[in-house]
Amino acid sequence: MAKKIAVLPGDGIGPEIVAEALKILSFLNTDMNLDLVFENALIGGAAYDAFGTPLPQITLNLCKNADAVLLGAVGGPKWEPLPHAVRPERGLLSIRSELNLFSNLRPAILCPQLVDASTLKPEVVSGLDIMIVRELTGGIYFGQPRGIRLLENGEQQGYNTLVYSESEIRRIAHSAFKTAQKRHKKLCSVDKANVLEVTELWRNVMTEVGKDYPDVQLTHMYVDNAAMQLVRAPKQFDVIVTTNMFGDILSDIAAMLTGSIGMLPSASLDASGKGMYEPIHGSAPDIAGKGIANPLATILSVAMMLRYTFNQPAAADRIEQAVNAALDAQVRTADIHSEGMVKVSTSEMGDTVLDAL
Amino acid sequence: MAKKIAVLPGDGIGPEIVAEALKILSFLNTDMNLDLVFENALIGGAAYDAFGTPLPQITLNLCKNADAVLLGAVGGPKWEPLPHAVRPERGLLSIRSELNLFSNLRPAILCPQLVDASTLKPEVVSGLDIMIVRELTGGIYFGQPRGIRLLENGEQQGYNTLVYSESEIRRIAHSAFKTAQKRHKKLCSVDKANVLEVTELWRNVMTEVGKDYPDVQLTHMYVDNAAMQLVRAPKQFDVIVTTNMFGDILSDIAAMLTGSIGMLPSASLDASGKGMYEPIHGSAPDIAGKGIANPLATILSVAMMLRYTFNQPAAADRIEQAVNAALDAQVRTADIHSEGMVKVSTSEMGDTVLDAL
Ligand SMILES: CC(C)[C@H](C(=O)O)[C@@H](O)C(=O)O
Ligand SMILES: CC(C)[C@H](C(=O)O)[C@@H](O)C(=O)O
Repeated sequence: MAKKIAVLPGDGIGPEIVAEALKILSFLNTDMNLDLVFENALIGGAAYDAFGTPLPQITLNLCKNADAVLLGAVGGPKWEPLPHAVRPERGLLSIRSELNLFSNLRPAILCPQLVDASTLKPEVVSGLDIMIVRELTGGIYFGQPRGIRLLENGEQQGYNTLVYSESEIRRIAHSAFKTAQKRHKKLCSVDKANVLEVTELWRNVMTEVGKDYPDVQLTHMYVDNAAMQLVRAPKQFDVIVTTNMFGDILSDIAAMLTGSIGMLPSASLDASGKGMYEPIHGSAPDIAGKGIANPLATILSVAMMLRYTFNQPAAADRIEQAVNAALDAQVRTADIHSEGMVKVSTSEMGDTVLDAL
Repeated sequence: MAKKIAVLPGDGIGPEIVAEALKILSFLNTDMNLDLVFENALIGGAAYDAFGTPLPQITLNLCKNADAVLLGAVGGPKWEPLPHAVRPERGLLSIRSELNLFSNLRPAILCPQLVDASTLKPEVVSGLDIMIVRELTGGIYFGQPRGIRLLENGEQQGYNTLVYSESEIRRIAHSAFKTAQKRHKKLCSVDKANVLEVTELWRNVMTEVGKDYPDVQLTHMYVDNAAMQLVRAPKQFDVIVTTNMFGDILSDIAAMLTGSIGMLPSASLDASGKGMYEPIHGSAPDIAGKGIANPLATILSVAMMLRYTFNQPAAADRIEQAVNAALDAQVRTADIHSEGMVKVSTSEMGDTVLDAL
């Protein structure tokens, strides 16, 4: 039976970069008989403009019935004045939660061709290949109670709850250990167990689950130190697993170490391997519509989709090799351009990858 | 009347580095008639070993009656197996809270002599001079309710509360705006207002307080982006103000950008300017007792004390210039040593600074 992919271009540069990723995926679909079908829907600001909500029921239904979701990006200044409940980001948070996409895989890989793009010294980052496993449907992002209340003395008080149950920690732990098993078998769990009770439980559960994976070396690190170590000596890490909020911060640091966030894909998976795939960069409203955005992060997100949801490692490898070939051909979009390279548009970059296939 | 300084050497390298800082302070005390008196007390693991608690009442009383506190560092593997309530870190958290030291100033300054110590490229960090203002007595560090409970289904659940009231945000805002006024008049408030209601309130109060400081340019940034920008282009920042937890992480990133955390002091102030002063680095148990620790962060913490609590800018300047002179003389402790420099011990470094005075 055909596998269905829900395609959500979203806002800003989203539609442009998703179009290039679909070029690649359509080609492989035919070339390798992957039997994939595509269906588009609106999310984020685009969905708000059409339906008054960033995640319309029709989009959610499509995603629930799909085998995988390909997302561009959401958000932009146009929707910033809106109340929180209907802001584009809410669409993203809701879909993560509704589809139970608790395991967010964020690789930070430095392409050798782009080592100069990093603000870090080449010897510190060359060969960098870290995977951050971020818990995505729990923690302070979703914890109750939350809100802003009026105190008796007349002043306002804001509050949010950071909460994790054993089972939530256990499932992300298994996901992280399995990821580490397929890599260099080193897992660093990041918490703030010296201050936060909830991450004391996190540390205990990680240690307990670790007994099922004797081949993986588990270490623990406080989040402040982890942030520091990512800047000091990032290559000490293989896989990092952490909470939703810490993962938001650490994965952005790790991404920035590579100097080219236009290159980095991500996967958000549920327990069955169904997933949503998206570039880690945002909707870049300032360059939207100009045809100059870098489509490689989205193209590499499609490779992750083929690998993780559709179990097609050969197809994924082909995409990754084609991206590599495009970089070797010295073709660059504006964000990764440097002297002596050929500056190309979004669609020219997509075509170069397609040709390399 | 004499001003009293409570001296808490703490654990690990704490006693060694505090001894050097006191050399400097005692000299200036005589030389400039500062009329300072000193009294020692135990904190952290050392206090636990003697009294069974990391913050004995006698230490707390001394600190409450003092005009300023000079702290070395706390903690070490010896005390890690202890229950949380009596771990060395608890002593630190309790003293911050008991003395109402809500405003934590953490400068990240790159000494020109040490630019090569950074893992970042020289052009990205040379001239770096950021001040992070971290809220220190509220937020998720102290929020109630907190703990680990048993759910009805038999599994454990950990929870912590991130909470700020308007008045807590307002006082740290004033502290940050005043700090910015004395510097380059740029303040960046870091939050996660797109996800956390409590930081929506944070953002609103910052904006409101900003009206009292029309000469300061206020911007807002999400924490994930701020972490990224610190790696990408740290010199865009002048003063950053943020919550306790975000400040813990961001100040460690900022510190690591300089590549020499053995150089960085900090101040934790209450509303009246009374403060606790300490190096931002830890107790470094691995090198404790070897006489090789870098005392400069603690010496520079004394300079901050003279500036912020005792209103002695001339004395503070003298210390900072003497440290600069020691670096110019190519004298280095092991942590900042590089080829061609003279490697010195903790006390030799202290003496070099003293000579320069
Ligand atoms: C847009 C925002 C809600 C989101 C998050 O905080 O998770 C983003 O920063 C991310 O990391 O995907
Ligand atoms: C030791 C620890 C409790 C402390 C903190 O988290 O505040 C430390 O990391 C710091 O930044 O001073």
